Amino acid sequence: MDERLKKQIDFIIETDKAKQIFRQNYIADGSRKENDAEHGWQLALMSYLLKEHANEDIDIVKVMIMVLIHDIVEIDAGDTYAFDEKGYESKRDREVAAADRIYNILPKDQAKELYDIWEEFEAYETPEAKYAHALDHFQPLLLHHNTNGISWKEHGISKSQVYKRNIRTKEGSKTIDDCINEVVEINVKKGNLKDE
Amino acid sequence: MDERLKKQIDFIIETDKAKQIFRQNYIADGSRKENDAEHGWQLALMSYLLKEHANEDIDIVKVMIMVLIHDIVEIDAGDTYAFDEKGYESKRDREVAAADRIYNILPKDQAKELYDIWEEFEAYETPEAKYAHALDHFQPLLLHHNTNGISWKEHGISKSQVYKRNIRTKEGSKTIDDCINEVVEINVKKGNLKDE
Repeated sequence: MDERLKKQIDFIIETDKAKQIFRQNYIADGSRKENDAEHGWQLALMSYLLKEHANEDIDIVKVMIMVLIHDIVEIDAGDTYAFDEKGYESKRDREVAAADRIYNILPKDQAKELYDIWEEFEAYETPEAKYAHALDHFQPLLLHHNTNGISWKEHGISKSQVYKRNIRTKEGSKTIDDCINEVVEINVKKGNLKDE
Repeated sequence: MDERLKKQIDFIIETDKAKQIFRQNYIADGSRKENDAEHGWQLALMSYLLKEHANEDIDIVKVMIMVLIHDIVEIDAGDTYAFDEKGYESKRDREVAAADRIYNILPKDQAKELYDIWEEFEAYETPEAKYAHALDHFQPLLLHHNTNGISWKEHGISKSQVYKRNIRTKEGSKTIDDCINEVVEINVKKGNLKDE
């Protein structure tokens, strides 16, 4: 087999492990937690469907591949829960090492391309990265809302923690940010989020 | 909330059910079967990474959204196993009814757009549809190969059935078709596929 295709296949098989990396949020029917592959699928679908709500003009292909790959580092680094402050201290170092190993399974040009797109997501500066982050905040929030905040209640999460997490969402999409604020207030009223 | 955004969110939540539609193939570690959301994530990633192997010039955004949504009909119609000849007789009717219901949750313009992309996939005529089908054949085959054909052995699948299923793969990608043939022969030798 072609050496280049072999490397591409090796990467595809290695990243299959994302199907076994579980997040803290539940899927919409509340039956179990969601894994990174499912999260990536839903984000890519949302990025296409909601692109009219991005604040700035975006390169939609770049956003789609960005959200499809942004959590691949968790294969080595594990999922760091959005509200785990201690975990966040070592997150960057763990994820850089993971990106270095995993993306380099690909042919050199594609390894560089995907690593750079992941770094662009992390740097949170371009219109594509800002829109991708807005979606990455919005998607689990919709699932929290649809599962009556099971995961929020398990972790005793408060409104102020959610707002802190979402402080930059408006840079990617004003519409999504407004929607998040509306959903948060509904969930405070329902007792799914602590009012503090 | 904006009426248009509400419809888009309703669609996203409805299609979350794809995470609970299980396919016949296992994930690469062999621990469990794969669901439609995971399949969609991996296909979208593959479509981007392997685009150099498509026979013709393709619109990569169209391919990515095509593979992300192509199995959403299974939320109502269920997964029809690739080698279930009886199931295939009623597949089209079940899936058209499903597409009609599910895509129409979206705002009218997006419902039409996604329905048309799904129909383009089904019609198997454009370069994008041919490349998407090649990937849709290749992805489970890689997982079958990596799991020593557990699912093939469960169903007593033969080499000729796999070749019949892949008869048009070469229209989308000659390179992928060659690779499939190589993988099939390896798996016949290993006894994972019946040699008939």
